[in-house]
Amino acid sequence: MLVGVDIGGTKMLAIAASLAADIDTPDAVKVDHERRVPTPKSADVMVAGIEALVRSLEADSGGGVSGVAIGIAGLVDTLGVVHYSPHLPDVHQLALAAELRKALGCPVIVENDLTTAAIAEARMGAGRGCRNFVMVALGTGVGSKYYVDGELFRGAHGFAGEAGHMTVDRDGPRHLTGQPGPWEAFASGLGLGELARAAARGGGAPRLVELAGGVEAVSGQTVAAAVAEGDAAALAVLDDFAEQVALGLGSLVNILDPERIVVGGGVSEIGEPLRARVEAALGRWIVGAAVRPPVPIVLAQLGEMAGVLGAAVRAGDAARAG
Amino acid sequence: MLVGVDIGGTKMLAIAASLAADIDTPDAVKVDHERRVPTPKSADVMVAGIEALVRSLEADSGGGVSGVAIGIAGLVDTLGVVHYSPHLPDVHQLALAAELRKALGCPVIVENDLTTAAIAEARMGAGRGCRNFVMVALGTGVGSKYYVDGELFRGAHGFAGEAGHMTVDRDGPRHLTGQPGPWEAFASGLGLGELARAAARGGGAPRLVELAGGVEAVSGQTVAAAVAEGDAAALAVLDDFAEQVALGLGSLVNILDPERIVVGGGVSEIGEPLRARVEAALGRWIVGAAVRPPVPIVLAQLGEMAGVLGAAVRAGDAARAG
Repeated sequence: MLVGVDIGGTKMLAIAASLAADIDTPDAVKVDHERRVPTPKSADVMVAGIEALVRSLEADSGGGVSGVAIGIAGLVDTLGVVHYSPHLPDVHQLALAAELRKALGCPVIVENDLTTAAIAEARMGAGRGCRNFVMVALGTGVGSKYYVDGELFRGAHGFAGEAGHMTVDRDGPRHLTGQPGPWEAFASGLGLGELARAAARGGGAPRLVELAGGVEAVSGQTVAAAVAEGDAAALAVLDDFAEQVALGLGSLVNILDPERIVVGGGVSEIGEPLRARVEAALGRWIVGAAVRPPVPIVLAQLGEMAGVLGAAVRAGDAARAG
Repeated sequence: MLVGVDIGGTKMLAIAASLAADIDTPDAVKVDHERRVPTPKSADVMVAGIEALVRSLEADSGGGVSGVAIGIAGLVDTLGVVHYSPHLPDVHQLALAAELRKALGCPVIVENDLTTAAIAEARMGAGRGCRNFVMVALGTGVGSKYYVDGELFRGAHGFAGEAGHMTVDRDGPRHLTGQPGPWEAFASGLGLGELARAAARGGGAPRLVELAGGVEAVSGQTVAAAVAEGDAAALAVLDDFAEQVALGLGSLVNILDPERIVVGGGVSEIGEPLRARVEAALGRWIVGAAVRPPVPIVLAQLGEMAGVLGAAVRAGDAARAG
């Protein structure tokens, strides 16, 4: 039995799973059991919390665990040390993989949570068959990972892919992370909510206000709901938001020259209206766009399961490596 | 005999050279002859111009050429087709490698000019011994290339590395290339000149005005000259410029996670005063800078010869591949 765990800001999602012989198929991960528990709020109870979760899946399955992999937000190095995580403000250089290995008595891999999601989309989802793609997750923040020549691009220390923190508005206000004007301030659900509230304050978006119950309650989710109804004001907000997404993706195309861009994360659940707008805007932000192949934008296929499915794949790697 | 050619905006620099058995040494390229001629101004005379240059080096050397490589600014794909070049406004999909191969009767490789410079710095210069580095060239524009796990990062179509065109000021004025607020508008010699003229217009930089002969004649070169004299106003301009360089480099660190950054191009001739300021500013633009290894900034070592030396290395590759 393999265990994959995806640690989010509020909940941990874990699966007991087995892998097909050929992982590069949509059904590569067979999920036997699934559990959701609240995310421990401090580093000292994190190891015990994950251990209890794994043991409960062992009990469900009636079998021993041969490999575990964890996906967690933040800077995780190649040895599974968590240097920084937005979900664990008190963590500093937590050797999570080593501590879990000791607690569980089996091989453990710890990855950035978007890394596990990108692995899943690459093997079983929207990145299948594509050797060079950028994956972005538009959620509360913005994350990105890259496949290059068929391999995950990790960087020198395992920290590659923090495109959400590239500066797109050098005179912009400081973000939560301390840098002025990072892309994630504009391309996240929070960025979408800000655009929508600005429209609502101007009086031009009555349906958004009605759905949210007040101008200041308008959020990215409100826009998603109104777009689904075809509300014109919400679609106008989406036009502006798509441009804010496209400007960062265009920078990534300039830098990385991918064949495809996979867009996931909660905001991507808006679906085709967002995808089409981003794809249409992208060329404006790419140098020489007129003389190079267009870069298709595709929606992620695995939804909120991507992270935990990719973790199960990595748990298989852990079990094999021993 | 191998021939390397570096095609610049005004001149073509070419060398007849031979390679040492071990290329990863500072003296790997032995330059036998060197020629500089004006750059042909249109695509239809480019092939003939390069052919004449190669033939003249053959005459100098008294031997036949076995391989040629060209570095040229712009988007060059992996087959040596030039899709766009700022030096050749009338070029559109010019199959430069294929045409030169026909004209010269020997193997020819065509590369982006910063690619050849990065190859030279990687093998013989400031990138030696480093498997993951970013090279940037701060000149009239800003270019970048990356070495990843010891290999040049080319991207899906060979166009990777155009970080000069990433958006750093989304509300900024449109640049020559059509995109608003690209990094190269701020981190280039032109960007440096703009900062300096702003200081001069305010009356706070008398030495810059004196050196240039007038406020509007102040340029990046004027700053370089005044910095060499230790002029305080020029050093203050350099502080601001270093921040503009660092913000883009910080984004590249967030995205690529390199071990080292090599800074070349004409502006880098300012040297240590620029290098030290950029290194000091860099951390402000990197997510989690406090918990990750610092990224050293080093100056390129091969100066204006980098491009043509790297072209000679690629000419050796061309000769071997046949």
